[in-house]
Amino acid sequence: MKALVYLGPSQKALQDRPKPEITAPSDAIVKMTKTTICGTDLHILKGDVPTCQPGRVLGHEGVGIVESCGAAVTAFKPGDRVLISCISACGKCGPCRQQMYSHCTTGGWILGNSIDGTQAEFVRIPHADTSLYPIPEGADEEALVMLSDILPTGFECGVLNGKVQPGSTVAIVGAGPIGLATLLTAQFYSPAEIIVIDLDDNRLEVAKRFGATATINSTNGKALEAVMKLTGNRGVDTAIEAVGIPATFEMCQTIIAPGGTIANIGVHGKKVELHLELLWDHNISITTRLVDTATIPLLFKTVRSHKIDPKRLITHRFKLDKILEAYDTFGNAAKTNALKVIVEAS
Amino acid sequence: MKALVYLGPSQKALQDRPKPEITAPSDAIVKMTKTTICGTDLHILKGDVPTCQPGRVLGHEGVGIVESCGAAVTAFKPGDRVLISCISACGKCGPCRQQMYSHCTTGGWILGNSIDGTQAEFVRIPHADTSLYPIPEGADEEALVMLSDILPTGFECGVLNGKVQPGSTVAIVGAGPIGLATLLTAQFYSPAEIIVIDLDDNRLEVAKRFGATATINSTNGKALEAVMKLTGNRGVDTAIEAVGIPATFEMCQTIIAPGGTIANIGVHGKKVELHLELLWDHNISITTRLVDTATIPLLFKTVRSHKIDPKRLITHRFKLDKILEAYDTFGNAAKTNALKVIVEAS
Amino acid sequence: MKALVYLGPSQKALQDRPKPEITAPSDAIVKMTKTTICGTDLHILKGDVPTCQPGRVLGHEGVGIVESCGAAVTAFKPGDRVLISCISACGKCGPCRQQMYSHCTTGGWILGNSIDGTQAEFVRIPHADTSLYPIPEGADEEALVMLSDILPTGFECGVLNGKVQPGSTVAIVGAGPIGLATLLTAQFYSPAEIIVIDLDDNRLEVAKRFGATATINSTNGKALEAVMKLTGNRGVDTAIEAVGIPATFEMCQTIIAPGGTIANIGVHGKKVELHLELLWDHNISITTRLVDTATIPLLFKTVRSHKIDPKRLITHRFKLDKILEAYDTFGNAAKTNALKVIVEAS
Amino acid sequence: MKALVYLGPSQKALQDRPKPEITAPSDAIVKMTKTTICGTDLHILKGDVPTCQPGRVLGHEGVGIVESCGAAVTAFKPGDRVLISCISACGKCGPCRQQMYSHCTTGGWILGNSIDGTQAEFVRIPHADTSLYPIPEGADEEALVMLSDILPTGFECGVLNGKVQPGSTVAIVGAGPIGLATLLTAQFYSPAEIIVIDLDDNRLEVAKRFGATATINSTNGKALEAVMKLTGNRGVDTAIEAVGIPATFEMCQTIIAPGGTIANIGVHGKKVELHLELLWDHNISITTRLVDTATIPLLFKTVRSHKIDPKRLITHRFKLDKILEAYDTFGNAAKTNALKVIVEAS
Repeated sequence: MKALVYLGPSQKALQDRPKPEITAPSDAIVKMTKTTICGTDLHILKGDVPTCQPGRVLGHEGVGIVESCGAAVTAFKPGDRVLISCISACGKCGPCRQQMYSHCTTGGWILGNSIDGTQAEFVRIPHADTSLYPIPEGADEEALVMLSDILPTGFECGVLNGKVQPGSTVAIVGAGPIGLATLLTAQFYSPAEIIVIDLDDNRLEVAKRFGATATINSTNGKALEAVMKLTGNRGVDTAIEAVGIPATFEMCQTIIAPGGTIANIGVHGKKVELHLELLWDHNISITTRLVDTATIPLLFKTVRSHKIDPKRLITHRFKLDKILEAYDTFGNAAKTNALKVIVEAS
Repeated sequence: MKALVYLGPSQKALQDRPKPEITAPSDAIVKMTKTTICGTDLHILKGDVPTCQPGRVLGHEGVGIVESCGAAVTAFKPGDRVLISCISACGKCGPCRQQMYSHCTTGGWILGNSIDGTQAEFVRIPHADTSLYPIPEGADEEALVMLSDILPTGFECGVLNGKVQPGSTVAIVGAGPIGLATLLTAQFYSPAEIIVIDLDDNRLEVAKRFGATATINSTNGKALEAVMKLTGNRGVDTAIEAVGIPATFEMCQTIIAPGGTIANIGVHGKKVELHLELLWDHNISITTRLVDTATIPLLFKTVRSHKIDPKRLITHRFKLDKILEAYDTFGNAAKTNALKVIVEAS
Repeated sequence: MKALVYLGPSQKALQDRPKPEITAPSDAIVKMTKTTICGTDLHILKGDVPTCQPGRVLGHEGVGIVESCGAAVTAFKPGDRVLISCISACGKCGPCRQQMYSHCTTGGWILGNSIDGTQAEFVRIPHADTSLYPIPEGADEEALVMLSDILPTGFECGVLNGKVQPGSTVAIVGAGPIGLATLLTAQFYSPAEIIVIDLDDNRLEVAKRFGATATINSTNGKALEAVMKLTGNRGVDTAIEAVGIPATFEMCQTIIAPGGTIANIGVHGKKVELHLELLWDHNISITTRLVDTATIPLLFKTVRSHKIDPKRLITHRFKLDKILEAYDTFGNAAKTNALKVIVEAS
Repeated sequence: MKALVYLGPSQKALQDRPKPEITAPSDAIVKMTKTTICGTDLHILKGDVPTCQPGRVLGHEGVGIVESCGAAVTAFKPGDRVLISCISACGKCGPCRQQMYSHCTTGGWILGNSIDGTQAEFVRIPHADTSLYPIPEGADEEALVMLSDILPTGFECGVLNGKVQPGSTVAIVGAGPIGLATLLTAQFYSPAEIIVIDLDDNRLEVAKRFGATATINSTNGKALEAVMKLTGNRGVDTAIEAVGIPATFEMCQTIIAPGGTIANIGVHGKKVELHLELLWDHNISITTRLVDTATIPLLFKTVRSHKIDPKRLITHRFKLDKILEAYDTFGNAAKTNALKVIVEAS
């Protein structure tokens, strides 16, 4: 089968690989129909993810059709259309019992990381019963690709952890795909204000279209002043970090109101400074989270009832044999204005 | 009247001061019976609290008898025995409505800080109806002095923010008075393990007597290893910082289990390093809080029903005219083994 | 001044009454600009509310301008435009500290009940600082009249108590003004389905326009079957009772899914049957609540940011001297299709 | 093997039955070491549980040793000592994902009900990975038998649903084994008062020994007056129904304070009256729940750390071949003072 293989820092190729086989009774083999590329795949290609070794098939998102099932799989059968969670979860261990699937003792984020992933014609899904989700007849599968990772990430790590509430004031720092997914799902809770902050005017325009009530280009270094003006000098109830660098995390610390929550989504490569000398008495919370995808069933319902249209995040489409082109387009988002690209595997 | 007055860094004196008078209809004048000294008073004396200017009467804890009331005070009358909250709260503003009294727009921690405090024969209490609490007939007033600040601080900032639960594993970093108050109130929730970490063996012995299930002297720099051994390499569900320096806050980051909470109590004078490069995917929370004293009524009930004995924190007693001696004793806790000292004002 | 006075069962009149005066330092006198009539006023007129004695000025909703303030009022001054909460709250007692203002020991629902109310040219508001809310420049005051009672009632007793969540399934039993207010505010949380059940097709059509995803006319006694068909035989996550009679409360018991919540809003005059022989193992919750109006500030923000348009509830407008006509119109809603009527006092 | 078999209303026998066999890959066969008898077994014998048909081996509690495992079982292997949950849970379905194991679509309470149970030498456990719990070396297995059902029932349905809090006031109506299990686990949260109400002085004496702060014999019909006297006429924050008849559920309605919670544990055979005409504005919650046993891991930790001693519930011990005697003793608790009886199967 064709598969996009990581070959070491800055190296990847579309290769022929043997079709995966069932290795445990709880496995399923899924024939991919659509997958996508994640910012994390670019991180891997920079060599930033040591758990991902050369030779690995990348990808942890997508939809497909069950090809075969191990003997212990009871929820699915060959032919079922399924959504693949980016997080594999056994459903049995301590963390899984708490719906903290990201810390499953035999799963978590392993797809396209420590085991072969979804940017291929077929993929082996461990713990299939608790890592796949049935796609109902007539659903728009392209939209559902956004439920593998990006929408639950924005919703769980940003919106839920950030305790977004009706009438509250939210700032989202970073208007990349993940910041925009956060923006879309934040509106489930009807906050009064959603301020989006970024360096790129194009992205800020998209944010406006996606529901931001105000946008701030922070290039001039005056984002703090702008937020304070917008909030009557009070700051925001929720500040969501969707970039992953020290500067944006520090910005969150300056704009958060007493009693507020800073919800970190960004993947950080460096330590940051925490200004406890200012914040120790501000009654704030700071949260971190790797997405658990525990809200996929909830998000399914919001899509089906048209509370959200995940396809707004999709800007480009490619066939699997053009996946290198898809990587180029996604990797040059500043030029291409790419948000999420769909890769059609069959 | 006699009053302990801050005269600038490292300077204080017991002086004669005019008796305070009612200046707003919601004020009450309270004749102090017992007060105490807080670690924060020592901070002021180091010159670390710029809001507190020379000439200020110190003290923000204590019990007394209502001497007179402004026209708008409805909950108290002269002669009532009262507990004074260290936090003055108007009960009307946005933060007060959320029980975040520490951020009351016309109150908060002002006693013995920006207005004269309780280490005196009399004190003016603003917003009396919502800043005083009635003491029932027959209650042990000495015990209740611990409810002005130290017990709600340990309970709200450490135990409640830290989400201590039955069966959970808790570490308290710092076994000074505030760490010990946290230790006492953590037991309201029956955690399975409470590990107390400090540099001082005497304090750790007190912690053992107060209910710690394990103690660690971190002088050897091996606290992390010791915690991991005690927790089967998992870390703790709740790590409570009760010191206020970078080293102890960093220790909390190393011992916290995925899904856990770091609850900061310490008053920090410097920024700290936050290792988001390690913690971004650990699903943790970090909280800060200035005590709101919203739990004083709850704590009252636990004292009355003997769920806690706050007097265990009291080690020394002085008359008000010996308050300089009381400061010496409290300030040299390493030698004197002082925890909380009672100062009898009348 | 002119005032609508309750004179005993089925009797009311527009009378001349002395202008109210300040009787406590925390009182304010408010010159009414707009008020409205509540279903509860009709209950009083049926003689169903024994706390309301003949001679009482009715009304517990409205907006106005502060005319004068007692000495203890600090948040308002003459000339301020204010929203009046239907619940008077001292902000000091145990229930008020918990934001359970409805059970304030010296307040609660007293306006137009045990003290004179708002259907008059002037009204005395006790505990003014915590029972009035400032109206910002430029706000639409007519819309805000809906925030005195009906919107917080639907939101607090129905939506919040009912734990409406993104993607969840909600049934609202009763499409009168209060059911419709619940329908409007339920959408703050983006539930997937909101099924509205009533006997009146006109009201159900309004519900459709207001956002119901399905409506059921229960006249044929087959509402249960219809709900089960709509929910794949599972029942609803939240059932909100907005009528106040045994039949509708029993319907809620039949349609609630395991793990769900029945939130009662209705004012009940009779006991009801609770089918514990069926529900004891269904993991459900049932809640009751008199509105606390603790969410008025939140609702203010949702109105200002156009998350909700409360004016959709307003169907008729009258001058105060035509208030008897307003009562007729509101009392004959089946004919007049009245929802809320605005009465202009000045 | 020997097994206690239900033969229809009022009929049971100790019979020879074939040893159970694995029928699904997720099954395990457990060799029983200790089991017990539950009040629900007596209900079955009265013919009150139609899902339990004649021929069924009774019992849903106990500890044992894994004899064999299906191919999909990964958490256990032959020889492992295990605790059996009374609730079988697949860990995969919608309710299981929410930890509402009691409503597992292919499990729930089936043991000793719709499939053969634990009062036998061997039992087949479906969904073994998520229905068994490992027993650590050196644990007291007799104590752990109480974790199969009775302790999680008291804790989940009574204490957690009832929101017992430090300093709060709790009433437990019914001092049978389940009421006493509730009493023991309520103390995890340090409520100020736990009032236990029953008709039997012996049981009330046990309640006193187990930590009740007050007991009321309600034979004289004056329990309400007694509770009101004990609570300063306020009522209780939490009322826990642990009997299952209309009279006790109605008592809970009379003693609950505004803002409080009635947590039902009792298995009800009849509908009850709910006094909404009194309670509609009391801001109360009523909860029902079939135990989910989701807290078994938590309870394990509280037992291991000596926060609770479950053996206090054990009054009698029998060998399996004397199980009919055990039933007699347990069934005549009024005479024998039996709480829980241990039946040793091997």
